[in-house]
Formats: sequence, C-alpha cells, structure tokens
Amino acid sequence: MAGNSFGNQFTLITYGESHGAAVGGVIDGCPAGLEIDTAMVQAELDRRRPGQSSITTPRTESDTVELLSGLFEGKTTGAPIGFIIRNSNQRSDDYNHLKDVYRPGHADQVWDKKFGFRDHRGGGRSSARETAARVVGGTFAKQLLQQAGVEIKAYVSRVKDIEVTANYDELDLTKIENNIVRCPEGATAQQMIALIEQAKEAGDSVGGIVTCVCKNVPAGWGEPVFDRLDAMLAHAMLSINATKGF
Amino acid sequence: MAGNSFGNQFTLITYGESHGAAVGGVIDGCPAGLEIDTAMVQAELDRRRPGQSSITTPRTESDTVELLSGLFEGKTTGAPIGFIIRNSNQRSDDYNHLKDVYRPGHADQVWDKKFGFRDHRGGGRSSARETAARVVGGTFAKQLLQQAGVEIKAYVSRVKDIEVTANYDELDLTKIENNIVRCPEGATAQQMIALIEQAKEAGDSVGGIVTCVCKNVPAGWGEPVFDRLDAMLAHAMLSINATKGF
Amino acid sequence: MAGNSFGNQFTLITYGESHGAAVGGVIDGCPAGLEIDTAMVQAELDRRRPGQSSITTPRTESDTVELLSGLFEGKTTGAPIGFIIRNSNQRSDDYNHLKDVYRPGHADQVWDKKFGFRDHRGGGRSSARETAARVVGGTFAKQLLQQAGVEIKAYVSRVKDIEVTANYDELDLTKIENNIVRCPEGATAQQMIALIEQAKEAGDSVGGIVTCVCKNVPAGWGEPVFDRLDAMLAHAMLSINATKGF
Amino acid sequence: MAGNSFGNQFTLITYGESHGAAVGGVIDGCPAGLEIDTAMVQAELDRRRPGQSSITTPRTESDTVELLSGLFEGKTTGAPIGFIIRNSNQRSDDYNHLKDVYRPGHADQVWDKKFGFRDHRGGGRSSARETAARVVGGTFAKQLLQQAGVEIKAYVSRVKDIEVTANYDELDLTKIENNIVRCPEGATAQQMIALIEQAKEAGDSVGGIVTCVCKNVPAGWGEPVFDRLDAMLAHAMLSINATKGF
Repeated sequence: MAGNSFGNQFTLITYGESHGAAVGGVIDGCPAGLEIDTAMVQAELDRRRPGQSSITTPRTESDTVELLSGLFEGKTTGAPIGFIIRNSNQRSDDYNHLKDVYRPGHADQVWDKKFGFRDHRGGGRSSARETAARVVGGTFAKQLLQQAGVEIKAYVSRVKDIEVTANYDELDLTKIENNIVRCPEGATAQQMIALIEQAKEAGDSVGGIVTCVCKNVPAGWGEPVFDRLDAMLAHAMLSINATKGF
Repeated sequence: MAGNSFGNQFTLITYGESHGAAVGGVIDGCPAGLEIDTAMVQAELDRRRPGQSSITTPRTESDTVELLSGLFEGKTTGAPIGFIIRNSNQRSDDYNHLKDVYRPGHADQVWDKKFGFRDHRGGGRSSARETAARVVGGTFAKQLLQQAGVEIKAYVSRVKDIEVTANYDELDLTKIENNIVRCPEGATAQQMIALIEQAKEAGDSVGGIVTCVCKNVPAGWGEPVFDRLDAMLAHAMLSINATKGF
Repeated sequence: MAGNSFGNQFTLITYGESHGAAVGGVIDGCPAGLEIDTAMVQAELDRRRPGQSSITTPRTESDTVELLSGLFEGKTTGAPIGFIIRNSNQRSDDYNHLKDVYRPGHADQVWDKKFGFRDHRGGGRSSARETAARVVGGTFAKQLLQQAGVEIKAYVSRVKDIEVTANYDELDLTKIENNIVRCPEGATAQQMIALIEQAKEAGDSVGGIVTCVCKNVPAGWGEPVFDRLDAMLAHAMLSINATKGF
Repeated sequence: MAGNSFGNQFTLITYGESHGAAVGGVIDGCPAGLEIDTAMVQAELDRRRPGQSSITTPRTESDTVELLSGLFEGKTTGAPIGFIIRNSNQRSDDYNHLKDVYRPGHADQVWDKKFGFRDHRGGGRSSARETAARVVGGTFAKQLLQQAGVEIKAYVSRVKDIEVTANYDELDLTKIENNIVRCPEGATAQQMIALIEQAKEAGDSVGGIVTCVCKNVPAGWGEPVFDRLDAMLAHAMLSINATKGF
C-alpha cells in the first residue's frame, strides 16, 4: 500500500482531495455485530469542521457522510465499510492564481518532486480536509473501543506558552466542549482564545499541545517490539497534518 | 487487512454488497502521470454487466461508475483513486422470503458461521456484483500495462465438453467480442451458446474454461519465491466467485 | 515485503540460497502456548530431503534444523520462531563451469534480468532447497491445525498418465508412506515408480498430480472476497517450484 | 505480521530472546548490487554492545554477527539477507529467582497477560538485546542511504538537565565518538558522564535526548498521508525499548 492506509487488523484507507469531488474511505476489519450510532459519526464530523468559530480557518466545509456498505439494521456485518463525504464546493477557480507558484510551507513542491505532477487546485491529499475521512474511521474505532470499556478524551493543554495548570487526572474532562478551544480549564481556555485571536489579527498562527487521556486500556494491547502501542500512536499522530511531536 | 484488498504495489480494496447502496473501491499505488481513458472504464463495466444476452443471468444491473479522486486533467496524480458504483435497485423486499433460509450453494451459511451475523438481502459481499469494483481496478491496471506494451486478452476456450480447437496463438483474438459467449472461434461459439441455452432450459448451468493470453510480459515480473507471477495470478483468479481451478 | 514471506496472521519468511551458508526463516504470529513436537519438525524435513530413494534427484542434502527462539519448555511463547538449516556442502566449485551460461529451464536468466546480477553458484533462491524452510514453517502450522482437529494428508494421485483409480475418500491414507512415490494405492504406486525410472534412464523427468485431503476444516476459514481459502491455497501451491496448476 | 517486522519496501524482521540461543533477523527488499562493508556491520554491533564503559549496564555481551544469505562476492543479490547473532551466555540459572516474580518496570507482566505464558529467563523479546538485530538491519540501510548520498549522525544532546549548548548545525559531528556518552561537545559530555555516574552510585538511572541529523535527504521521501517520513521515524524510534518521546 502506498501510504494511504493505517492499521493491520482494523484498517482505514482514505482517498480524496480538498478540491475534488469527494473525500472518503473504506474501513476493513471492523468486527461484525458492533452496534453503530450513525448520528455520532456525523456529530464527530461536525466537531472537526473548520469555520465553526472565530479562531479557526474561515473556510466553511459542510461535511455530510454517507455510509455505503458493511452495515445492516444498525450493526456492522464484518464486511468493509465504504463511506463518502461529497465536497460541497469543488470550484478550483479560487486557486488558478496558484497554478504556477508553490504556496510556502505547504507540501505542493514536495508532491511535484515526488510524482512529477501537480494538481494545483489546493493542498490536494496533503490538505487537512483528508482528516474528515479519518474522523469517520476514528468514530467507528471509538465505538468499538467504548464497547470494550475504553474511554478516550483529548483536550488542548497548551497554546504557545499558555498551559493548563492542573494535571490530566485532576481535570473535569466533561468540560472539554464548553469552549471553542476545547480546553477543560475555563480560565486558561479564555487566555488561549485571546492569544489565538491576537495572532490571527497579526496574520500569524500559533502552535499548541493536545493531551489525550485513555482510560481502561487493557494490559497487553499493542504488539511486541516494532508495533508497541506508543509507537503506533506516534505513527498515527505524526501522520496528521502539521503535527510536530509526540 | 481482512481479505478485501489485493496487490502490494498497485492495491485495490473493494467494498459494497449486492443489495446495499453501492459497490466501490479505492486504487492505491497507481503511478502518477498515467493517462486514463475514462470512457474505457465505463465500457469495461458495461462488458461485465449481467443481462446483456440470453445466456447470462437475467438480473439487469445498470452500472455507472463515478471516479472521485486521484485524477486531474485526465491523468492520475499518484493519489488514491476512489470510485463508486451506485446500486440502482436496492429493494431487499425480493429477498425477504430468504430471511430464515440459506440459499443452497451460496456462501450465506459460511458467512453466518464466521461472523455470527447475516445480511439476508442477498449474496452480500459474496455476490458476483462485487466484481464490478474489480473491473474498475482492472481497467486502470490494464491501461497501465498497455502503456508498458503489455497486451492482455481473455476468451472462453471451453464450455462443458465443447472446446476451442485451435491453439491460442493461432486464433484471431480481435474476434472475441463477435459473439455473446466471447469465444473467437465462430463455429465453436455457436455450439457453446446452444449448450448453455439447453442447460438453461433445463434449469441448470454449465462450467467452462477461460484462457487468458498476455503478450510482451517482460522477464523478471513477479517476485521470487512466494509471489511468483503465476502464484499471484492463481490467487487473483481463484478469488473470483465460482472459479474452481487455475 | 519483497516476495519472501507468506501469510497474514501466521507468517513465514524464508531466506537462504542452495549454495550459501544456510537456509532458514522466521515464523511470526504463531499463537503462544502451542506444544511443539520438535522431533516431528526434523522428521518432516527428513521426508523432504532429496536422495532418499532411487527415483529422486541424487543430490544428497542432510538437513538439520536448529530452532533458535520463540520456544520455552516445549511450548511456543508468542514470540517469533527463528530457525536455521546449515548447508552441509557449500562448495560452489561444482558450479564454476556455469559462470557464463544459463541453465536451460531454470530461473537464472530471469533473476539476472530482474536484479542485474547473478549468483552463478546454483539455483540460489529459486532452488528447491528453499522449500526446506517451508517444511519447518509448515510443520508448525500442521501442529497448530492438528490441535484444532484439522487433518491434512497429501499423496501422489497421478504420474504422467498413471492415475490412482479410487476416489480420495475410499483410499487408506495411512498407506501413503508405504512406498517411495507416496501413493496409497500399492499397485498403482509400483507402476508410477516403474514409469519414473524409465524416464530417468532416458534422461528425462515426468510430471504428476498431488491430491491433498483436509478433514474437519471449520466453516468460515479464509477471508471473504480476495483471500478465500482456495485462493490462498492456490497462491501457496503455485509458489512452490515447478508447480503448474491448481 | 505480528509486530516483529518494520518497513514496507526495505523490511526487517527480527527474532530472538535475551536468554535463548540467538537473536537474528531477515532483511527483505534490500536492492541487488549494493556493496556491503561487512566489517562495518560488525563495528556498528560493537558500538551497541553493553559493558563498553563505566556508564552503561555492566552485563557484557559479545555479539558476533554471521551473514547467512543474500550476499555474493561482497554485494547484495536482491535475495533476503538472513543473519544470526549467537547468545554467548544462555544460562538462565541467574534468573531462576525471578520465576515467580515480575521485575518492576519491565514488560514481563504485560507479556504474561497478553500471551498467558511467560518465559521467566529474562526480558525475552522485550529485552534491549533485540536491538542487536536492528543494528544489523540498520547498518544495511545506512550503507544503502550512504550510496544515495544521505548522511545520518546521532548524538546525545541532553542528559537529565544537562544540554548541549550549540545548535546541531554548529557542532563538529566527527567528535561524537570521542567520549563514552557520544556527545560531540566535549565539556558538556564530561558533565553528562559525571551526572550518570552520580545517578549510578545512587542506584538510579537518568533519561536523556538523542538528536539525529540527516543530511541530503531528497524531497519526496516518505509516502503521503499516513506514512509521512516523520510518522515512520516516530514509529521506529518509539518502538525502541525505553524511548518515550519524539
């Protein structure tokens, strides 16, 4: 496989460019008989969607997922789950001025060197839009893990030099969704938002750290030696656009 | 991967059930810069379609493929090629009488044993309809091979005990499409058709042999030891519904 | 992987050339806690060994396997099982006259084309000697299957035009080892042996068919679609040197 | 594969426990025609060996690698490269007192939970000894990369709170081997060594950071989306025993 899939037993393969007809994917290896809350799949996609608040990229994307196979009467059948998210806005006119230039800091130039070929309509595969397909795959994985008792919660723990003060086990993780920066510590969240808006006004952006808390993970998960759990997690995390450390 | 993909460098993964919303797939690893004749993709799908002639299953399927990604200005970009073929007729009412029975000679019972679960709407993944997705993958592969000078032609060389008399290198392979049984030897083709229609009238079906001729295959293709070219071809051929030998 | 491994869950990778220091391999994915009869591993290797009888190639190989890892107190631990079979005779002097010629009907020329390079000391990887490593992997698989109640027996059912007359379920499969051609039908076996010796005297060799009987295979083994059980078996069988059909 | 291999095109699979007969592995996918400096393979193994200096674990291991296949007249042949490193000291008597206890902070307990089985002779697969096999694989990779012009150097840039002051591009990387802590900044190295010896005397150990500098890496290496170069590197690095971040 040429880099577009992840996972050995539960495998997600994704396709689609930011300015093509659709992004989508196939989940292969999801066990049969898993009850799927399809509304949750859509809800998680809505959480990912840019343009939800003043602090993210203004580009609005309306992502509606259609599940095409592998489900019957609300349960997985063991067959692969194909899904598609149509791109509502495929006009590439906005990007015609980029035909002969590379956007600094984007992967365009690398793609061109690698494939001798460039789709100048936007970030293409390297666009953050590809992560919409990951959200769908991730939501199936999350429901599978939930039924095994595993809980997974992630929050923004740092933006530039503003950091959550409490340790992850002292925080009330139900408060993550209470603000647009998704930080469960309210006062810190407000400082983060102010900092991001400042940077935005200055035409800049800022980095941060996401902390992920996994509860009730059974001993023995992950494979020995090369596919230790944290090695796989690092692989997955660093494969996300713009992630720089683990 | 759980059995729904094939190929290491050029990989096809398929999804979709005969009575779900769609069948489709993703081609990963197709080199960038390959010119694709999209009309040929549709033409090959039309060749596969059941209900074209009096000697096949009467179930009509109208297969229209939509290519969703990985193409730009008529060429592959190196990104994965997602595609979808909607099922025009998803009513599973026709199959409700099958809810509590297994169809003899179909894979239903095996699926149930394996996954503890059955989608009784039809053959599901085991249906020959899944091969529509293979045709799309195969057409990309064929165009890739054509540009490397490799020619591939297949014809029906035997139906029950009626056999083509000439050797494959004495046949005019341009005549394959001249009849509904796709046998380039005209008189033999007529006998085959008669035999199939006889069997059909008797409520039976008959087996046969397909001969495939590959010209200009460079020495050194295939991998040593486990993935010899003929081992891979046998794997691929026997993965097709109802194939029994190689 | 470049063609030297087989299997997804239970994987065998092999290495070694006929005229190098050793052949060997690694079994990855064998479940923990399986009791292994190591004497049986050696016994199966002895069964494979050429030079056992007048009807095979006279080249004698003495194959002693050393199991290097993955076992503790007679049981598998879940860790990979490394093993090595030293080549007793690594002199490549016998082959120096072949330095500048290709042996007709061998894979030497193909290897040269593929890798731009040739080890002229013998068949190298394409030698039947590579199958010694498969026998070790196969013996572990056989013991695993035995403990699941599955029985596997193979016999020679045809040599050129001499064929076993009884159906496989009428034969006494315990008689397979009673003769050097491994055919459970005694009289037929004698005819086969006579035919092979005739061919051998004439400086020729003859083809045949091996029938394999698997009992108690549970429904649901194999994966749907591309990795059906018979597709995987065909892949495996045709990856064996000199096999031509399935 | 069950976690004991790494890499898609150039694949390393390893086997062997710290207290078994040997550790070893197979390199599959190394291109043919690569000149291999076998002395360098041994030299890199010697660099890894514990017990070289006062600041590492005192357990001495003498690692001699034997290359078993895939090489002919000093060059790779394209066939898999099998190798073995015998364990000089396989006595497990030293460990008998551990039969009924788990060593705190080691993976023993996890292994037991996962496989229902434990080889109490030592760390087994989780032992740092497994990395000896990685060094062999890595040395082949390094020689392959060198011939593509890529240079790779790693040094210790931090031990607890003592940090190299210069930036990586200001350091003289030829000085890495000048001291036992492998830090090219001499004065800092002395402080690091003092700190480690202090910790050792107190029966403790300390963490640190390794910086790796790769020069002349061509644009376009790594695969898009899931197998970005840094995701693969993070996966590889975190699969090493006791690594905690990337």
